[in-house]
Amino acid sequence: MHCGCRAGLFLAAVLALWALKPAAVFGDEGLWLFNNVPKEQLKKNHNFDAEQKWLDHVQLSSVRFNSGGSGSFVSAEGLVMTNHHVAADSLQKMGKEGYNPYRDGFHAKRLADEHKCEGIELNVLINMTDVTKRVNEAVKPGTTPEDAAKARRAVMNTIEKESTDKTKLKSQVVTLFQGGAYHLYRFKKYTDVRLVFAPEQQIAFYGGDPDNFEYPRYDLDAAFFRVYEGGKPAKTPHYLKWSTKNLTDNELVFVSGHPGRTNRLATLADLAYQRDVGFPSMLQRLNRLEVLLATYSDRSEENARQAKELFFGVQNSRKARIGGLAALLSPELWAFKSKEEARFKKAAEEREELKGAKSAWQRIAASQKVRASNIKKYTLLERRAGAFTEYFGFARTLVRAGEERTKANKDRLREYSDANLESLQEDLVADNPIYPAYETALLTDSLTYLAGELGSTDPLVRKVLAGKSPRARARELVNGTKLGDAKVRKALYEGGKKAIDESTDPMIVLARLIDPEARAVRRIIEAEDEVTRQAYGDVARVQFALDGARTYPDATFTLRLSFGTVKGYEEEGKKIPFQTDFAGMYKRSAAHKNKGAFELPKRWLEAKKDLDLKVPFNFVCTVDIIGGNSGSPVINRDAEVVGLIFDGNIQSLAWDFRYDDKEGRSVAVAATGIIEALRKVYKANDLADELLGKKAAVSRR
Amino acid sequence: MHCGCRAGLFLAAVLALWALKPAAVFGDEGLWLFNNVPKEQLKKNHNFDAEQKWLDHVQLSSVRFNSGGSGSFVSAEGLVMTNHHVAADSLQKMGKEGYNPYRDGFHAKRLADEHKCEGIELNVLINMTDVTKRVNEAVKPGTTPEDAAKARRAVMNTIEKESTDKTKLKSQVVTLFQGGAYHLYRFKKYTDVRLVFAPEQQIAFYGGDPDNFEYPRYDLDAAFFRVYEGGKPAKTPHYLKWSTKNLTDNELVFVSGHPGRTNRLATLADLAYQRDVGFPSMLQRLNRLEVLLATYSDRSEENARQAKELFFGVQNSRKARIGGLAALLSPELWAFKSKEEARFKKAAEEREELKGAKSAWQRIAASQKVRASNIKKYTLLERRAGAFTEYFGFARTLVRAGEERTKANKDRLREYSDANLESLQEDLVADNPIYPAYETALLTDSLTYLAGELGSTDPLVRKVLAGKSPRARARELVNGTKLGDAKVRKALYEGGKKAIDESTDPMIVLARLIDPEARAVRRIIEAEDEVTRQAYGDVARVQFALDGARTYPDATFTLRLSFGTVKGYEEEGKKIPFQTDFAGMYKRSAAHKNKGAFELPKRWLEAKKDLDLKVPFNFVCTVDIIGGNSGSPVINRDAEVVGLIFDGNIQSLAWDFRYDDKEGRSVAVAATGIIEALRKVYKANDLADELLGKKAAVSRR
Repeated sequence: MHCGCRAGLFLAAVLALWALKPAAVFGDEGLWLFNNVPKEQLKKNHNFDAEQKWLDHVQLSSVRFNSGGSGSFVSAEGLVMTNHHVAADSLQKMGKEGYNPYRDGFHAKRLADEHKCEGIELNVLINMTDVTKRVNEAVKPGTTPEDAAKARRAVMNTIEKESTDKTKLKSQVVTLFQGGAYHLYRFKKYTDVRLVFAPEQQIAFYGGDPDNFEYPRYDLDAAFFRVYEGGKPAKTPHYLKWSTKNLTDNELVFVSGHPGRTNRLATLADLAYQRDVGFPSMLQRLNRLEVLLATYSDRSEENARQAKELFFGVQNSRKARIGGLAALLSPELWAFKSKEEARFKKAAEEREELKGAKSAWQRIAASQKVRASNIKKYTLLERRAGAFTEYFGFARTLVRAGEERTKANKDRLREYSDANLESLQEDLVADNPIYPAYETALLTDSLTYLAGELGSTDPLVRKVLAGKSPRARARELVNGTKLGDAKVRKALYEGGKKAIDESTDPMIVLARLIDPEARAVRRIIEAEDEVTRQAYGDVARVQFALDGARTYPDATFTLRLSFGTVKGYEEEGKKIPFQTDFAGMYKRSAAHKNKGAFELPKRWLEAKKDLDLKVPFNFVCTVDIIGGNSGSPVINRDAEVVGLIFDGNIQSLAWDFRYDDKEGRSVAVAATGIIEALRKVYKANDLADELLGKKAAVSRR
Repeated sequence: MHCGCRAGLFLAAVLALWALKPAAVFGDEGLWLFNNVPKEQLKKNHNFDAEQKWLDHVQLSSVRFNSGGSGSFVSAEGLVMTNHHVAADSLQKMGKEGYNPYRDGFHAKRLADEHKCEGIELNVLINMTDVTKRVNEAVKPGTTPEDAAKARRAVMNTIEKESTDKTKLKSQVVTLFQGGAYHLYRFKKYTDVRLVFAPEQQIAFYGGDPDNFEYPRYDLDAAFFRVYEGGKPAKTPHYLKWSTKNLTDNELVFVSGHPGRTNRLATLADLAYQRDVGFPSMLQRLNRLEVLLATYSDRSEENARQAKELFFGVQNSRKARIGGLAALLSPELWAFKSKEEARFKKAAEEREELKGAKSAWQRIAASQKVRASNIKKYTLLERRAGAFTEYFGFARTLVRAGEERTKANKDRLREYSDANLESLQEDLVADNPIYPAYETALLTDSLTYLAGELGSTDPLVRKVLAGKSPRARARELVNGTKLGDAKVRKALYEGGKKAIDESTDPMIVLARLIDPEARAVRRIIEAEDEVTRQAYGDVARVQFALDGARTYPDATFTLRLSFGTVKGYEEEGKKIPFQTDFAGMYKRSAAHKNKGAFELPKRWLEAKKDLDLKVPFNFVCTVDIIGGNSGSPVINRDAEVVGLIFDGNIQSLAWDFRYDDKEGRSVAVAATGIIEALRKVYKANDLADELLGKKAAVSRR
């Protein structure tokens, strides 16, 4: 599954953020910015004219989920399509003992039944402005990395604040080409987001972990939300119409979405770091969490319900990381990258105008060493792996919000800048359920992990454990804290630094205790980010000089347009057709006696007689995507929805480092399959009619 | 579950083997040697006379499983009782696609149906001789640790060979008090071992991972084998009679079995090593394996069948290690051990006759440092975690057997000494099933682990991977090897060094490639074992001087007698009665809707109407046990079977380091429950009658 959701949070700490792009373009490779679409290539290879009107329409129809993931408007009345697994966090939070919409699905037959989800925010990119010059001028030559990082943060915070004050739009300075460019993005923000429809997780994720990142597939990984304004469905004139035609082999298709992170410009030293440090240590943590969550879930149905979404996210990340690590261990990648790096280095040596870049590779290598020796502590303290409970997350946010808000906007940590505070506060006070026994299990395990990784004689570990065993300490903290109550959090947040300083809530006390060391290691990592940012800026210059317009920035969870063709592939001598149908799904279920991951929901067994079994269900295409693209619409030349991205195959996991369309494919739900399922399985004819433009939602009272 | 079975193999590498015993005796603490039973304590506390005849009878009725685990003779015709989970390996190997006795149970109604298990060996301890003087004299003072280890190995190999030649009994020099004593043990060996009865794994392990190491419990964790000689049931005049009486509160009971390993004399430095290095790194590997096996199992029913026993073993070890680590992280243990260590050190400082021991603690601490920096490589190369497939195990044995057999017996690695070769050969050529796709999955993962841990630029890792990715290399090795064929292994073994040297089998080539480095790191570890052995010998001397006869050696998988009382306990303010009954089992099932780990086998649902629901099913007692005791009989004053050890509760996991009967308990199946289940659920009246001495087995044609 291609989400960048909750489990993705763990990854951020370990995966390098600082790689840019280049390398020779391969087939339809490319995660293109909407203001830099390769129009010539589209014209030449696909006879497609990328007109500005078409591009603007698609951009304004595209939606970003703050929880990680993509979506699109699919009706004029604010209807948003995304993946079930992007909606998972909301579905999880809606549930309670005895009520499990994540597992069993959800369907609001009337507008009034649409379920308002707490703490979810959707953003639509309105416009982009290049602010590279202003950002770079703020960093004076010769500044130390730590001061450079500070200066850069300051100017970015300031630009955002100015923009927000002026436009009232959510404003964000995004880093592209890793510091090769900085753009100011302005978003329209929707915070009243309601769930309309989601199927059972069993069909959304049919085939479960065994089939995840595999193909052929049979998944209805779809969900629909609706955004509201002023208590009414928002008016969204820019939305994607629905195609009722089946796809044809080699048809040109586009994907508009928010790929989270790629590392395609990574140097050999950077790749070696990820292969030897980043990925193995991340997998170690994911394995640990997966076992913990499986164990917790096995104890009862209610436990399983509580842990379900995180469990899914962890399994998904684990399988993705295993695929990524396999790519990092493949000699083919190294052969290719070595050649590229030699080509770049040669140019830097030989061309006078590039000579400043000569030391870039060495600077990155040196920086990776510093990173390698700090990443463990950074992950445990700053990324919270050592106190992995929601309570501590609240406490951390409160403690830092207390302190940061006493500073000038420009001096704050990025996530506490004025431009970000509103979203942060909404997230903090969202009244979502929290389960003390579950949190105790997570905290016991993470305190044990902390002690194991830093050593139980480490002075900070001793202070954190306070002379108790991890289990006893976790119980004491969870039983003692009041932060599970949204009202308590709100009061502390509003009370500011004074209220936080005076608080004796044990979780707040713990967050205060850890904060100095967490901030210290964050400063080290951010200084190294600045070193690599500058070095990669140089590498990008070389790349640009050699490859020119063929370059696009590495993914950074900003909006991109990709394109490619609907196409099957060959795997170990076996031809795999581009699409599957409902008949294939029932066959797969029968082959596994309808058991385990291959069990169909009851509703689907009963609907077999009604379904047209030949309707296409899932398909693959060569479009370039990565985690974060989950929920992206697949559209045709006419900007009509023909599918919904939800995954890539195993081979596509290597796209993190290098795109290759020999076997690598994106996997999508077919638009025709969605309509067929909505009508025949879920009797959701109103929703299907809204998608097809046949019936207004407001008529559904 | 208290086995020391296959999963236990992984543990050996990380858990210190060299700790002995002492510390103040607590309640009925003690893992007593049969030639050193605390008769006075038994008389005083329990008014029991431990007569030699009674002791001899119990000793000769006790059985050790070479696969790890304990058992006992329970009829004059070679019937052996043990746990289902000790029989798991045999049950796993009996299965094939579509036939799953491990899951579904097994019952031989006639003698002719009793199933011969390949590669299983049972040992009965016949006698013990003290050879301490001879072993110690072979190691000259002032020898380097490496030479000392060699000399000690040589004399042990020689003593065993002399004994085997003279008595024809399997002979083994066992290390007790970590070098405080060496005893020559002689065993009668049974290699024709046939399975008679095993229930469904679902009832043997009722409650699954959630209930493992917990109490109350409802498990029929029992299985019966029969040993044969000359194709007929062996005559076993020493066997335990069966009690038909229910247990009473506070009743005295005994356990005779083979506790695998305790670390109760471990110094603080040793405990710190285990807390900071040993346990965390072991858990890391177990988590990794658990996720891999869960993933493999989820793909199909047949996959699940193949991986079942290892999966169970890994989960079991994981839960045990988490419990052990929790004990190691508890301040209570450290407070107690610190006091003990101070007491010992004081005595070593003050008493002239103990002054040689003064440096012991420092020597152990220094040795742990060497161990900490070598244990990763040792685990990966020598313990085979880096090439974790049965094929490589065969290749390793063949390569080493080829080389070691060219050496004089005294110079060989211990497992290739003449006294051990016969058992080794039987294990090697046992014709058990092997599944290439399963082995490929395990090998891919372990090669990836190897690359991650040693770094993929490590010269040996490069050679092992041979320029391929782990997945490609694993496929090539598994597809290329012929070692899955028992006849091929037999031929290579018999061909000796020449045949091995000439073999081009890729797995043999790999084993040859790894062997020099594996042997080198083994030499380092064994030299450190010698250092700690000598140092712990000193610590033991101090302990003995202070505490005298209250001491017993730490567990070493040698036969021990423990005793205690049948007794409930209090946990978080809740009273937990000493026994459960069948009614409780049905209640637990109903509370979980008979789902997941709490699902009862169909046969048990149907038998509810026939069972006397008040018959005791499981019970707890204070008897001192540890992993390896699985399958041990629980007997009363009259040496009658009243139960069958299969587990300890969570609190008992701390017994690895310190016994405490406040909440810690051993968990057993009640003898009465076994008979009731055999008759009412399984209609195994013949077997029940044999246990009760009512009907001879030979009548069952």
